[in-house]
Amino acid sequence: MVRWEADGRERLAKAALELYSKQGFDETTVAEIAQSAGLTERTFFRHFADKREALFGGQDQFVQGFIDGVALAPHSASPFDVAATAVLVGSKPFTAERRPHSLQRQKILNAHSELRERELLKLAGLAHALASALIARDVGEPAASLAAESGVVVFRVSWDQWLAEGNTRSLVDLERDAFAELGTLVMVSRKP
Amino acid sequence: MVRWEADGRERLAKAALELYSKQGFDETTVAEIAQSAGLTERTFFRHFADKREALFGGQDQFVQGFIDGVALAPHSASPFDVAATAVLVGSKPFTAERRPHSLQRQKILNAHSELRERELLKLAGLAHALASALIARDVGEPAASLAAESGVVVFRVSWDQWLAEGNTRSLVDLERDAFAELGTLVMVSRKP
Repeated sequence: MVRWEADGRERLAKAALELYSKQGFDETTVAEIAQSAGLTERTFFRHFADKREALFGGQDQFVQGFIDGVALAPHSASPFDVAATAVLVGSKPFTAERRPHSLQRQKILNAHSELRERELLKLAGLAHALASALIARDVGEPAASLAAESGVVVFRVSWDQWLAEGNTRSLVDLERDAFAELGTLVMVSRKP
Repeated sequence: MVRWEADGRERLAKAALELYSKQGFDETTVAEIAQSAGLTERTFFRHFADKREALFGGQDQFVQGFIDGVALAPHSASPFDVAATAVLVGSKPFTAERRPHSLQRQKILNAHSELRERELLKLAGLAHALASALIARDVGEPAASLAAESGVVVFRVSWDQWLAEGNTRSLVDLERDAFAELGTLVMVSRKP
């Protein structure tokens, strides 16, 4: 993709987020988004299938961050540790500077069940990609799916904590604690 | 709800599933479903908000099965064990006799991302209800959400195995193994 196209995509996503926040998701048209970004409706639809997708740009890159994490885990790591590494590496881009943007987006999602549905489908896609990466490392099923899905659970639960009002901790810190907590929960359950 | 109304709801859901299977989800109209069930469109919309919902009837009852399981767990049970009990109790209605129906429904879901989205939202609702039931038992956060979401992960992964071609094991058996497997995965990860 040449530079101006990437810019166009980002500008459209930014304009969409701002309009959805300001005047509401239902009230915003693609024409308005395109106009606000200084582009045409046709360009919008070259980048996004629909109005919802403008909130889910960068999904491939997001998933790739996690898959890169899988590659970083040592060969001796257990499936669960590989999943944990993937989640921690994939979450790195969500820094304190990015939190206001993530929070603004989440508020729009929370207000619309059809957007939350789309988000859940994207996270299911992430879990599926993670499980596939584990299977490629010779992890069997259902271990691969269980480890991948548990990793995504930790991501989701930590994500909510990260965006909670008053939180000052980093996403990665919250995830580290959540992985430890999940471990303790399971350990306690296995005590005789 | 009086008897004939419950019957109407079930008849509509059954007619919808059959028509979706036979002629496709997109190709089926509410009018056809109502006609096939010997009822009116108006009756359909008294029971279901839209065409998708006809595949998600009995959600309250489904969730209630899990919540009943929470109540059955002994007071001394760990949060993770409570979640496991909830999943095993909630899964009991899905017997071998019911598998063909679940499989027929799943095939329709798998072919339509908007139906899978809806399913994921329903399962997120289940996880939320489970977490709330754990919180009511004085489990703190994020432990309650982690235990509840992990339980739903085991349900989902086992559900896929249950409906896999050639499977003859029961859903509850698969879940028992998945809980044990998840435990082992986490334990191995905690070894020094």
